[in-house]
Parts: sequence; structure tokens; C-alpha cells
Amino acid sequence: MNIPKGFKFSGLHCGIKRYRKDIALAYSEKECVTSGFFTTNAIKAAPVLHNIQVLKENSENIRALIVNSKIANSCTGEEGLQNAFKMAKITAQKLHIDSRSVLVASTGIIGIQLPMEKVEYGIDAAVKKLDSDVISFAEAIMTTDTTVKISFRKINVPQEVILLGIAKGSGMIHPNLSTMLAFIFTDAKIPFYTLKELLKKSIDKTYNMIDVDGDMSTNDMVLMFCNGAANVEIKEKTAAYDKFSRALDEINTELAKKIVSDGEGASKVIEVRVANAPDEATAKKVARSICSSNLVKTAIHGADTNWGRIIAAAGSSQTFFSLEMVDLHISDGKEEICVFEKGKSQAFNEENLRRVLSSREIFLLLNMNTSNSSATAWGCDLTEKYIQINGRYKT
Amino acid sequence: MNIPKGFKFSGLHCGIKRYRKDIALAYSEKECVTSGFFTTNAIKAAPVLHNIQVLKENSENIRALIVNSKIANSCTGEEGLQNAFKMAKITAQKLHIDSRSVLVASTGIIGIQLPMEKVEYGIDAAVKKLDSDVISFAEAIMTTDTTVKISFRKINVPQEVILLGIAKGSGMIHPNLSTMLAFIFTDAKIPFYTLKELLKKSIDKTYNMIDVDGDMSTNDMVLMFCNGAANVEIKEKTAAYDKFSRALDEINTELAKKIVSDGEGASKVIEVRVANAPDEATAKKVARSICSSNLVKTAIHGADTNWGRIIAAAGSSQTFFSLEMVDLHISDGKEEICVFEKGKSQAFNEENLRRVLSSREIFLLLNMNTSNSSATAWGCDLTEKYIQINGRYKT
Repeated sequence: MNIPKGFKFSGLHCGIKRYRKDIALAYSEKECVTSGFFTTNAIKAAPVLHNIQVLKENSENIRALIVNSKIANSCTGEEGLQNAFKMAKITAQKLHIDSRSVLVASTGIIGIQLPMEKVEYGIDAAVKKLDSDVISFAEAIMTTDTTVKISFRKINVPQEVILLGIAKGSGMIHPNLSTMLAFIFTDAKIPFYTLKELLKKSIDKTYNMIDVDGDMSTNDMVLMFCNGAANVEIKEKTAAYDKFSRALDEINTELAKKIVSDGEGASKVIEVRVANAPDEATAKKVARSICSSNLVKTAIHGADTNWGRIIAAAGSSQTFFSLEMVDLHISDGKEEICVFEKGKSQAFNEENLRRVLSSREIFLLLNMNTSNSSATAWGCDLTEKYIQINGRYKT
Repeated sequence: MNIPKGFKFSGLHCGIKRYRKDIALAYSEKECVTSGFFTTNAIKAAPVLHNIQVLKENSENIRALIVNSKIANSCTGEEGLQNAFKMAKITAQKLHIDSRSVLVASTGIIGIQLPMEKVEYGIDAAVKKLDSDVISFAEAIMTTDTTVKISFRKINVPQEVILLGIAKGSGMIHPNLSTMLAFIFTDAKIPFYTLKELLKKSIDKTYNMIDVDGDMSTNDMVLMFCNGAANVEIKEKTAAYDKFSRALDEINTELAKKIVSDGEGASKVIEVRVANAPDEATAKKVARSICSSNLVKTAIHGADTNWGRIIAAAGSSQTFFSLEMVDLHISDGKEEICVFEKGKSQAFNEENLRRVLSSREIFLLLNMNTSNSSATAWGCDLTEKYIQINGRYKT
């Protein structure tokens, strides 16, 4: 694995969880220009409120990120806010940096206060262990995740620049109600407003396309840290910018898909591509509406050939389009079956479609044959296991 | 059961389904003033398009309603439209009435043409069997429903007026993606615009409060038929109007709750009341957001005490409210437990809450303590059985 210059990581178990790692630290030797995007939930967890405040005042001087899992520090009132601030303060003290240069993230159960003694012990140990241990960092931010989610790219622009992304999240229906955290670290130098726009565009194509119907948890955040240690500046309207932007999209797409395929109880990944839509907003809404339909998810889980549900879900996206123009193709990546063409159902072999739908990866292509906008969304199937996991989360 | 004067019903098996009843007919001896509300899905099934057209031209002269189950006649193109028209035409011929006075409804699988020979045979038989057989009518419109859904009220204004409601629907997540049909028959006389407003208001408080996040099937409809046979006119701004309106709300609430409690695989009914909200729109959005959260649904299914999910779902409703004012109470109708007060989690006995959550009926009260708007929504839990039913619907 390639780690961007000047960053160090650690992750360990400090006792918030019973056995697994539960505290993670990222540190930069140089100040980072940092951009953050946060949950749109009306209720924002304490670390979210903390970071919004810090980034408002100090977005070009960030040095560290401290994360805990198991407890969300959400709906925890004034005490929760103070605890988020304490996490930043303790981290800053141990690292001998300014407390306003530390960001905080939490994920887990809502409505419970953090065990601050354990957290303090954890931060101390995490500072001492700082190294290149990205995997421990990635492990320590997991909740119901079954695997770490890491993605990186090395590009030459022309000097070498590295982008490293680490995420967690495994909620299958509302990825964001089961908190999604994504952190991107790079040694490129990027001016704040360039970074902000770059990150926003990338999020809209990736994490927001697994975020069905706008639901978000109280703790969601995407943070991107640029410490400039590679001595390359990424400026707009340059070839370097395009290359960097592509690498960032690739990382975020990879992480978004990892989140989806680690969906709670998921057995299949569903990719929905809406092509030739009248406009991008319609393409996105329709793609997300299909991905978020419980009826589509269960039908695909059971390899049920009831493709009408896909069309109905497209229609329920509160958009307008002409059914007479629509084609629907279902594929497993090898064999593609057209079930609907220009508004008419097509004859197909039921057994073949059932075989296609039995694949681990299902590709739905809804061609609107209208204009040239398109969008892709990702989801997973809805299984009995999801019910079991989520009926017994806290207990 | 009381049947409004001048209406006759029948329902029987004509062979669209393998064994169960699949065709239903309602007939009025007098012309009905009729109002209809239809799916907002961009894709509308043939019978929906047919009815919209008929009601546009002839809403004061409706005489009959023909319904089939098992096949939705949706995404069936020109042939489907012709078949919907044929259903009306055949019904009209057998009843010796105008074909523009017949409404049509279908529910079932999308993308398949109706077996018109069987349908024609069924209509003929249904006309011959017309009688007071409301139960057969209610049975014949069922798909995954496990029980008939009928509700009626007799009121004196001062003459006797009867309202009879018959519905089907059992989709648990998006009640409307699994088609919802509701038909209300009354022998009151109501001017068209009064009826339309009355029905709209009632739908907004009832069926639309089990319609989560705006998703609707391609076939949803609510129709209300008033034949005036009781010789009473319901006029606006009268005591009779208020009484009638109340009775209509009661019927629709009862039917809406029956749909929810017959949710596919459902084991529990969840009632969410949002009280003292800043405005009605916020109250409705928050109540529906909680009811439609898969995480809330599964937690309640498993009697998991993770109440933070309820708060998070409230926040994700794309509304603005102050968490510091919010209380959350969870009840089984007998014991009420306060888990969150004025933005702070409250100490409670875990065992007690688990016992409350084990009830068949769960009542959530989110008090916003802000102003005086309120709303109630209904949903059901999400179970392993739902997955099983919907993974094998068509097969």
C-alpha cells in the first residue's frame, strides 16, 4: 500500500467495544487544507457540529483526525459536545499541536455518552503507535462492517502524488442511517476552494448514489485532507487537475461500492445505470429510486423474474419521462436480457433470466432513449439476514 | 353489514388466478357522482388512464366498477389500454348501461396482458351474481392480502346514510408499490366539488400516511361513488357535512390500518404520532419518515431498545426542528416509557422497554413541544417473512 507523504496512522482497542479495535488516529506532519461534507440530517451528532465549527475557522491548518467506533456521541446534548471537544483537546495535547487543528468523528449507538477515561487512554496509546498502519485505522472505525474499506491511487502530475481513501459503512437500505464515514488523504497541495468543488463533485457521483432517498445518519461525514507534502499544486483547468479528479472519483467509487457490497446481510450487488435520460437530475433520481426499492431488492434476492417492479420503481421517482421510449436490460455482466423495449414487454426465456438474476452481481440498464444524460447508482439485495442483524443491533 | 341503498356487489373466480376469486363487480341502480384519486407514479397502468379519461367527461354518471386481480394491466402498451376499455365495454353491455359509465381497476403483476376470454366470462358471471355480496367483492380484489378489508358506518343526518369502504393492499414498505385500491360507496347525494374536496382531505390523513416517501404503484386508486339513493344531500358548512366527513375519515383510517397490519410478513403495527410540531407539513414528514425507516422497522421487529434510530429517522425527514425541544415516548398502549426528553436521553429500565416493544401494537409519540400541529402515520415491522414473500412473488 502507498501512503501519501507526511501522514501517519494508528488504530487500536481501548475498551469502548468489548474486543475489537475502537479508536483510530490520523496525523499529518504538515498543516492540511481540509474540506468536509456532513450529514443533512436535521440532527447532527456532536463530532459533526465540532468539525463544522473547526473547519469554518481553521480549514487550512488541520493536523489530525481522531475517530471512535461503537458510540455515536449523537443526541448526547451539552455533555456530548464537550466530549467531542475533549477528544480534540486530548489529541492535540498528546501531539503538541493546536486543539483547533483536530477533527473528530464517531460512529455507533445513538444516545449514549462516551466513556471518556477509556477514550483518553485510547488517544494516548494511538499517538504512541502512530506509524503507517492504515489497516488498523480502517479496522478501528468499523461497526457492522465485515471488512476494511481502503482504496488508493498513485498518479504522476508529473511528480508523484498519492491519494488514500478509508471508509466505513455497511447499512444496506439507507447507507447513511448506518453511519458512513469516508476520509481521503493526499500529499498534493490544493487550494481550499478548488478542493471543496472537486470533493463535492466526486461525492455527488459516488457516495450520494448509494444514499437512497436522502436519508442520512446523524454522524455521516466525508473529509479530505491535503498536506502538500508532495510539493505539487493541483490547479484548476490543468491536465493535472483532470488526472487528480479522475483518481479521486475512482477511489470514491471503489469505496462506495465496497460499502454497498458489505451491506448488512447483503448477498448481491446491484448496479443500476440510467442512460440517455432527459437530464442528469432525472437519471440520478430514477437510478436511486430503483436501487432503494425494497421490492426490487427482495425480488433480486430471490432471483424472481418480476421485472415490472423495476419499471414501477423507476416511475415512482417523482420524475417525468415517457414510458414508450424506455428499454430495460438485465445482465449478470456476461449475459444480457432485454425484458422491456420501447414501452413493450419482450418475450424472454424465464430460466435464462432466473440464471442471470442468480449472479452475485446484477446490472440493470434502463435506457430512456431521450437525451444524453446518464447516472449510475449502487445498491444491494434485501435478505433475511439484514432483518436478523438489525433486529439485534444494540442487544 | 349495512350496504348503502341502490348498490349491488359480486365477486368470483374466473380463472385469472389458479384458485382464488379474481373478478369483482359493483353496480349502482342510479348514476353516481364519482371522484377518483390516482397514483402519482410517472407510469400509470391502463385502467388508471381509462378512469382518468372517463371521470374527466362523465364524473356524475358512473354506474359500475369492474376489478380484476392477479394481473395489473400495467406496462402493457396499446393492447393494455384496449383491454381496459374492453372490460368497461363488456360490463356495460351485460348491464345495459353506457360504457362511459363504467370504471375499471386491476392489481397484480406488471407487464402481462389480461386473458380477455376469462375476463369476459368473469364479467358475465359477475353481472348474473350481483347481490349484496360485499365480502366476495372484497375477496376478489385481494392479491397478497391475507384478509378482506371492509369498513362501514351508518349515520343519521337526520335521514339514514350509509358509507361502505372496501380496500386491498398489503405491501409493507411502500404500501403503494404493492397496489392499494380503496373504493367507497355511499347513498348520500354529494355535489361533485364538495365530494372531491372531502375525499382529498380524508386521503391525506389516512392512505397518504401509510404511503411512505411518495412511492406509489402504477395502479393505485381511491374511488368514491355517491348515488344519492338515500335522498339526503350533504352540503358544505352544515352539521351533516361534519358528521359525514368524520364517518368518512373513520372508514379510511380503519382501512388504512387494516392495510398496514396486513403488511407482507408483518408481525406488529406501529403508530407514530408527531405532536406539537411547528407546522403540519413537518409533522407529516417526520411521522412518515419514522414509519418508513427500515432500521426502525427491524429494531421494533426484534424488540431492540435502540431508540436512537427513531430520532435519527425523524432527523432524516428533510425538515428543520430543534432537537432540544423533542421528547420521545414508546408505548404498547398500556405502559408508556419516556426515553428522550428535551433533547436528552432518559434513564429507563431496559427490560421494561423490551417488554413494551414486544407488543403486537407499538405507539411512538414524538412531542416537538414547539407549536400545535400534529400528524399520525402507520407502519408495520420488517420481518424475515417479508423477504420470503417478495423474493418469490411471481414464481
